[in-house]
Amino acid sequence: MNKRKVAVLGATGMMGQKFVQLLSHHPWFEVSAVAASDRSVGKTYASSIGSRKETDMPVELGELLLVEPKPQAVGDSEIAFSALPAEIAGHVEEEFARAGVPVFSNASSHRMDQYVPLLNPEVNPEHASMVEEQKRRVKTGGFIVANPNCTTAILTLSLKPLQDKFGLETVVVSSMQAVSGAGYPGVASLDILQNVIPFIRNEEEKVEAETNKILGTIAEPAGITVSASCNRVPTIHGHMEAVFAKTRSTASPSEIAKSMREFKGAPQQLKLPSAPEHPIVVREEEDRPQTRIDVDEGNGMTVTVGRVRRDPALNGVKYMVLGHNLVRGGAGCSILNAELLISKKLIK
Amino acid sequence: MNKRKVAVLGATGMMGQKFVQLLSHHPWFEVSAVAASDRSVGKTYASSIGSRKETDMPVELGELLLVEPKPQAVGDSEIAFSALPAEIAGHVEEEFARAGVPVFSNASSHRMDQYVPLLNPEVNPEHASMVEEQKRRVKTGGFIVANPNCTTAILTLSLKPLQDKFGLETVVVSSMQAVSGAGYPGVASLDILQNVIPFIRNEEEKVEAETNKILGTIAEPAGITVSASCNRVPTIHGHMEAVFAKTRSTASPSEIAKSMREFKGAPQQLKLPSAPEHPIVVREEEDRPQTRIDVDEGNGMTVTVGRVRRDPALNGVKYMVLGHNLVRGGAGCSILNAELLISKKLIK
Amino acid sequence: MNKRKVAVLGATGMMGQKFVQLLSHHPWFEVSAVAASDRSVGKTYASSIGSRKETDMPVELGELLLVEPKPQAVGDSEIAFSALPAEIAGHVEEEFARAGVPVFSNASSHRMDQYVPLLNPEVNPEHASMVEEQKRRVKTGGFIVANPNCTTAILTLSLKPLQDKFGLETVVVSSMQAVSGAGYPGVASLDILQNVIPFIRNEEEKVEAETNKILGTIAEPAGITVSASCNRVPTIHGHMEAVFAKTRSTASPSEIAKSMREFKGAPQQLKLPSAPEHPIVVREEEDRPQTRIDVDEGNGMTVTVGRVRRDPALNGVKYMVLGHNLVRGGAGCSILNAELLISKKLIK
Amino acid sequence: MNKRKVAVLGATGMMGQKFVQLLSHHPWFEVSAVAASDRSVGKTYASSIGSRKETDMPVELGELLLVEPKPQAVGDSEIAFSALPAEIAGHVEEEFARAGVPVFSNASSHRMDQYVPLLNPEVNPEHASMVEEQKRRVKTGGFIVANPNCTTAILTLSLKPLQDKFGLETVVVSSMQAVSGAGYPGVASLDILQNVIPFIRNEEEKVEAETNKILGTIAEPAGITVSASCNRVPTIHGHMEAVFAKTRSTASPSEIAKSMREFKGAPQQLKLPSAPEHPIVVREEEDRPQTRIDVDEGNGMTVTVGRVRRDPALNGVKYMVLGHNLVRGGAGCSILNAELLISKKLIK
Repeated sequence: MNKRKVAVLGATGMMGQKFVQLLSHHPWFEVSAVAASDRSVGKTYASSIGSRKETDMPVELGELLLVEPKPQAVGDSEIAFSALPAEIAGHVEEEFARAGVPVFSNASSHRMDQYVPLLNPEVNPEHASMVEEQKRRVKTGGFIVANPNCTTAILTLSLKPLQDKFGLETVVVSSMQAVSGAGYPGVASLDILQNVIPFIRNEEEKVEAETNKILGTIAEPAGITVSASCNRVPTIHGHMEAVFAKTRSTASPSEIAKSMREFKGAPQQLKLPSAPEHPIVVREEEDRPQTRIDVDEGNGMTVTVGRVRRDPALNGVKYMVLGHNLVRGGAGCSILNAELLISKKLIK
Repeated sequence: MNKRKVAVLGATGMMGQKFVQLLSHHPWFEVSAVAASDRSVGKTYASSIGSRKETDMPVELGELLLVEPKPQAVGDSEIAFSALPAEIAGHVEEEFARAGVPVFSNASSHRMDQYVPLLNPEVNPEHASMVEEQKRRVKTGGFIVANPNCTTAILTLSLKPLQDKFGLETVVVSSMQAVSGAGYPGVASLDILQNVIPFIRNEEEKVEAETNKILGTIAEPAGITVSASCNRVPTIHGHMEAVFAKTRSTASPSEIAKSMREFKGAPQQLKLPSAPEHPIVVREEEDRPQTRIDVDEGNGMTVTVGRVRRDPALNGVKYMVLGHNLVRGGAGCSILNAELLISKKLIK
Repeated sequence: MNKRKVAVLGATGMMGQKFVQLLSHHPWFEVSAVAASDRSVGKTYASSIGSRKETDMPVELGELLLVEPKPQAVGDSEIAFSALPAEIAGHVEEEFARAGVPVFSNASSHRMDQYVPLLNPEVNPEHASMVEEQKRRVKTGGFIVANPNCTTAILTLSLKPLQDKFGLETVVVSSMQAVSGAGYPGVASLDILQNVIPFIRNEEEKVEAETNKILGTIAEPAGITVSASCNRVPTIHGHMEAVFAKTRSTASPSEIAKSMREFKGAPQQLKLPSAPEHPIVVREEEDRPQTRIDVDEGNGMTVTVGRVRRDPALNGVKYMVLGHNLVRGGAGCSILNAELLISKKLIK
Repeated sequence: MNKRKVAVLGATGMMGQKFVQLLSHHPWFEVSAVAASDRSVGKTYASSIGSRKETDMPVELGELLLVEPKPQAVGDSEIAFSALPAEIAGHVEEEFARAGVPVFSNASSHRMDQYVPLLNPEVNPEHASMVEEQKRRVKTGGFIVANPNCTTAILTLSLKPLQDKFGLETVVVSSMQAVSGAGYPGVASLDILQNVIPFIRNEEEKVEAETNKILGTIAEPAGITVSASCNRVPTIHGHMEAVFAKTRSTASPSEIAKSMREFKGAPQQLKLPSAPEHPIVVREEEDRPQTRIDVDEGNGMTVTVGRVRRDPALNGVKYMVLGHNLVRGGAGCSILNAELLISKKLIK
């Protein structure tokens, strides 16, 4: 099978690099263009990221020249993955969609747009069909699919089996988020060494709104009361979340754990290349998940749950969930979304 | 005024050193004996703690010889402060009380005992009188006063004005606790560098039970539904807590903040030497409190609150609170308890 | 005595804040102007530094309005302390000097200038008289005094007794430097968490050249062969240095340690307000100095030496030295320089 | 080919786990016994290491029951890899050798023994034949092969091309070592967060002596003057070393870099399974190697060199070298040693 050519927009940042890394050995996709909005246009990709690069990349990708994030600059790319900063993502992604390019975006700009699916592919694959309405309007075949905010992607995947089996009424979540979530240079070392910063701009609002869109139907949000408290801690990758949840029908901790452990979604059924075998791993040890040990579970696409126990406050359950903020919470989720839309023939 | 001679039991550990440090320039107390249960008995205090010492101490304290934690070994000490490990604290503290020595203990052993006040002096000073019943039973004038678990001390101080003004129904708390809370050597560096450990043994149970004892009356616990999720993060000193609280009567975030800001307790009214001017500082910045910046507020006796905002989940408020786990959450609280009992003439 | 009014240039950065903090309770000086080159001019000092502030400052200093770093903007300030970034320090400091204001600068711009003393006040106080030549040229009474690069300030203080007693031939130094040395925002957390960065731009060149100027005479550099390897490690404050030194006349480790321990400089003899009682503390423990424990020795003005032992490679001694990069290695040194020049009547 | 059965002694510690991990998919070896000296004998391997495990291991290895570290307890294991603590390694390893089992040991106990090769396989493969003398004495076919101390393994690999091409006279090295070098629980978090500890017991002596044994002939040590200063820094894996070296014949930095880049050793020529393609990678970037980014180069078997530049102090070169302390500096080196001896038919 010929691989589809894809462009990565915002390729030089932390998330853009993760896109390129995950795409560099992908069975369906081939990175044929890297774009950046900054002064690095015209340089080779390798030289523009310099010593900041997190992992090895194939030599030929490093030699790509950075282009401007414009449809005409990315040549014959059939799909665009966007890791653009929010300030410019909104406009640029629309331009690509109008030019007929399906855009899979990690930016927050269009997440809450009416016809943009906010897609966490194991959780709400049926939302994918929302792109039909976009196509009808744009008429070029282009559209935008957003993946959730990192914290929300991890949270909603863990909540999905509860929603399905028992119904969800209320969710309280307190997060402990890694610095890579803020991009590069992102958090200053003087701000985070030996520190907790109990504030991440707009994060709590995103978690509260996005969770309802994702767990809702195409027609309306889920109506779950969600309350978040988001914190930055001195870890590199991996967002840990303390979750307290009230379900509509009563469920014991062991029933909750069982529902998570047995959960499989469309990506598993469709055997999509980036789908982890187990979207949720539930651990029995009393002190797991742990950020450093569990962050790469399922190549970063699995979320790890632990300490499922009764919660007296909401009269429900409480548990911990950990996921990789750049993979399940970002580039990996976005790529799996593209695989899903191809598999569903929503992309030609 | 002659200073009262006091003994520090368990003086070589992290918390014991904090007791000695805080007592080393105290206007009412003078450390005349340091005791330890380990192999260091007979050595000088300075040599036994070696390079682990956190701060300078007066030369004469360093030259004290460590004795066994027995009443007959601490000479004419009138009060004992206990930082003993839980395994031996229960028995040793009783022995001191029977020998007529008031014991102020940071250990968990007796916290939930019927006649032992679990005292956070701004919060439940009226519980101090519970020692009368102990005295009646023991007949030597000795008794035990416990201070709360570190996380609970910080939490309950922040909750007190809410309880007083609006009544408390439900509290959810997710903590981010520093490594010094686990003592020395405590948490292995391999376990906490670049990691979050979502488990601290017995901590959640302590927070849930102790909060109710402290905020209750002498006769019965408060009946607040408390649910805790306790986490270890890579910080040195300072426990940060994300709190979600439902009050009985409705209160806006600004009313909550005002009640905290205006709060003063008995230690402030009595002008006790270790009482901070402001037991609770409420900050307006969007990203405070922060562990490294705010941990030493009020010499570690003040808790710092921030981000007071509406909580949709419990239909109440949510906020962050930070305190010094070794000072307000340990030795400092215990010393302030002793000052309170002296001031109330409960110690001769 | 009336306090002299002083201006702090570049007051909003990490080093500028340290200047303001150290000056805020100074017996001789009173901060009457704070200047910054950035967009914060016109704001209050407190609001411009926001949550980044490291320590409490008097309310009245926080209310000062930031002015431009120009002589006419700082009113009746008699002295300027400069924490300006290197890009603009060169020009601005000259302007102040021409306007008759003595400038004490932490910037590197003028350190190697012929008539600018590069002053570490215990080490080369006799260099202070170099300002006479500047005064002769400028004719307004203004001049510039530089303090050394942070690593060099700590190193040369430890080397001074060796130079005096035994003569210095060769010095090898490998540093482990804290992130605050790079200012704010400085080092990105993603670059330093769980990492060592073996490169700090221009640092090795500075150490090698400045050490020779400082330990030399007014007329010529010392002719010591210095070789540095400078590394950034994940600590907040405090530069640790592994030093290997060959002296001209043979000296045993204990003779070296004794020379350091007994060393006093002009600031101690003159009892200058910022002079530490002991400029060098030599510790006997096998595992000291340690960054976190020893960094604040002598209020950050003392350097702590340890592990003085024979070095077979240079046939000399090797030892560790630690100092506070923002105090002895920056603002503290600069303020002590000003005290020295006043004491020597080189400032009216 | 049937795999050889091997035992791992001291399998539950940090280094023992690394042995098991590296052996778990080895083409020549199969772990058939795991031994530990502690109270875990009789438990399954997986349960005894619990949440401390660094990586996934095959299920069947986790189900092995821990046995005592005695020859009769490890069944038909043909080779023993030892990660035993130094206190017991000396005696136990001799027992295995006497019982006819070749022992590849990471312990320091026998490293300096006359007939024990201290083997870093790219550096001194010819030392392997020293086991013949051991065999002659023991008569059972058993013997002991040691791998160097972690810091020395990394250092000597980087020095080998210099020794070969230019001769080595003097080496100064200042290390920045990760906490995993101290095993588990090892360094307390309170000792290393925001700290540098400039002391690692016996480490400097080991580096100085072992370097000479490794770079010498079978008959005598190399006669290089080595001076080390060893420091612990807050990193997890990876030892960084600042090296200053004087060669006998003059060599420019670029000649030095070239000799390193072109270097291949016996393991590369023999295409041994654990041999990295490039034993030394020399990077051109000004700020590399970096611990977090480069530690896993060549699966942890490659050392990464950077910043090769002239050193004025020794009139030689200075450079940085980084390696994985548990792989090249431990288990990986030991396994490569076993491969070398098999390849040389020194093991039947």
